[in-house]
Amino acid sequence: MTKDTLLNPPGLQPSAITESSKTTTTLPSHQARLDSRHNLITNTSGLAPGYLQANLLILPARYSQDFHQLCLRNPVACPLLGISRQPGNPYHMQPSGCITTPEDFDIRTDCPLYRVYQHGKPIATHQKNLLPFWPDPRHTPSPQHEDTERAEEYVSFLNGCSYSFESALTAATLTPRHQITGCLVPMYRTTIPLLPAGIFTGARTVVSMRPYPAHAVERVRAVTRPFLATHGEPVDWGWEALARLGIADLQAPDFGEPVPVEEGEVPVFWVRMFLVCVFVTLFPRGKGNVWGMWGLHGLGKFVCGSGWGFSC
Amino acid sequence: MTKDTLLNPPGLQPSAITESSKTTTTLPSHQARLDSRHNLITNTSGLAPGYLQANLLILPARYSQDFHQLCLRNPVACPLLGISRQPGNPYHMQPSGCITTPEDFDIRTDCPLYRVYQHGKPIATHQKNLLPFWPDPRHTPSPQHEDTERAEEYVSFLNGCSYSFESALTAATLTPRHQITGCLVPMYRTTIPLLPAGIFTGARTVVSMRPYPAHAVERVRAVTRPFLATHGEPVDWGWEALARLGIADLQAPDFGEPVPVEEGEVPVFWVRMFLVCVFVTLFPRGKGNVWGMWGLHGLGKFVCGSGWGFSC
Repeated sequence: MTKDTLLNPPGLQPSAITESSKTTTTLPSHQARLDSRHNLITNTSGLAPGYLQANLLILPARYSQDFHQLCLRNPVACPLLGISRQPGNPYHMQPSGCITTPEDFDIRTDCPLYRVYQHGKPIATHQKNLLPFWPDPRHTPSPQHEDTERAEEYVSFLNGCSYSFESALTAATLTPRHQITGCLVPMYRTTIPLLPAGIFTGARTVVSMRPYPAHAVERVRAVTRPFLATHGEPVDWGWEALARLGIADLQAPDFGEPVPVEEGEVPVFWVRMFLVCVFVTLFPRGKGNVWGMWGLHGLGKFVCGSGWGFSC
Repeated sequence: MTKDTLLNPPGLQPSAITESSKTTTTLPSHQARLDSRHNLITNTSGLAPGYLQANLLILPARYSQDFHQLCLRNPVACPLLGISRQPGNPYHMQPSGCITTPEDFDIRTDCPLYRVYQHGKPIATHQKNLLPFWPDPRHTPSPQHEDTERAEEYVSFLNGCSYSFESALTAATLTPRHQITGCLVPMYRTTIPLLPAGIFTGARTVVSMRPYPAHAVERVRAVTRPFLATHGEPVDWGWEALARLGIADLQAPDFGEPVPVEEGEVPVFWVRMFLVCVFVTLFPRGKGNVWGMWGLHGLGKFVCGSGWGFSC
């Protein structure tokens, strides 16, 4: 086996070789990724309507099995849409079809902005690409090279984004209150544990809240129920839910901004993937880099609402 | 389309036509089902080692989507292994391979004993088969017949059984205490909600408890982690876990029997599918029959420990 074979395993198709195909590819999801790659956008809200958007988490390979288990055990909080095929390979995600144009994809460049965490703290918050942290495995001189070793040990996860069902609510004349008031959705830490997996222990579920008239709750549940890949129907609702979830004050959310609750309305809570919680709260200190992102491109396989703005 | 076509949809293979193949089929899982069918056994504990055992729930089709969602949203509490292919069809489960000998299978007869619930209460507790409740769709005179209508509206679910990982613990010299004392594993209602799905709301997670020395907890977690289809690694552990789970008294379990906890040991809690909770606690009254079972046969696809005794 030659060095080239080692560095370019069968099936690995670097994005550069298909640069010429850009002009013939016009899928909105691909265009969003190209715009991200060329640093033309910093937020994916409203981009690629009809395609599902995702959160990205990149972990050292030695912790990836635990995070994979975390997703499998907590599919509502951590709805797993895709995972990189090989540790250290930034070009391929599985399942196939997860990325609409897999022949032109690089997880290190195709998101608008990245955050890089080390020892649980951000060391780069508006990173345009991950190339300084994850050098191209094709160009490193030897597998024994320190950078290559580092580059080859990362695994990427794509998880469904919670904003997807809001378009469906709006289409059903159930527009979320925070969209009307123009603020971030209020979010709360709850006392509901995420089921632990390996090193990921002690996490609590985070919920978002949208108020609705009590008589509309069943309709709200029905509208959001099909969104299996993006948190689905609410976890709880009604005023009694606050005690059950361990929320002390609805007007003092832990994240986001408070919204008014009108008379006759009740709070409705959805589980939310709060990615920062995963890699700040959960990830043990001193165990290496954890890379997170901010805004991502469409995925081809899942069709949901557009637009999101994960603001961590 | 003829009446026969309606009653025998393509692919439906009644168990009777393969009776002659019994002598050539010796898979332990098949044998366990045959013994159940002929009422030779009433408990599957220790049967078909190496095959995964399952809990069975049969629901009216109009509630089956909600229960399917409940399983997908709570895969640790409700690990879904199989689902019947068509409402009213007792002969086929999917995914294919879920049943080792699908050409000779009838969900109505192939379990040792069944419980039948109506309006949330058991109306038959040691039912040898479900034929009086679910007549053979091949023999009913017309799709318009009342019995046929009832027969065609049921959907069957197979969910992983929690006893599977105990063999692995024993093999790792971590024999569960209740096996040593010869009692039922202690179980507790917790304050952790199951994520609701449609009509299935308000359920709380039930956990089983096995005490272990504090220094062995990580090993216990590692041994049970791979058992994804049968609840996997613990949900919580240590004395502080009691407050987090809402357990008042370890020596007063809600189900099963208490076990001694020695000095230096801590309680370790696993999520458990407590099926009775599903169809007694959750199922709305007055909404028809809900059929549960007690003891089931091996499944071919999954290889885990043997033996269980779901005693509801």
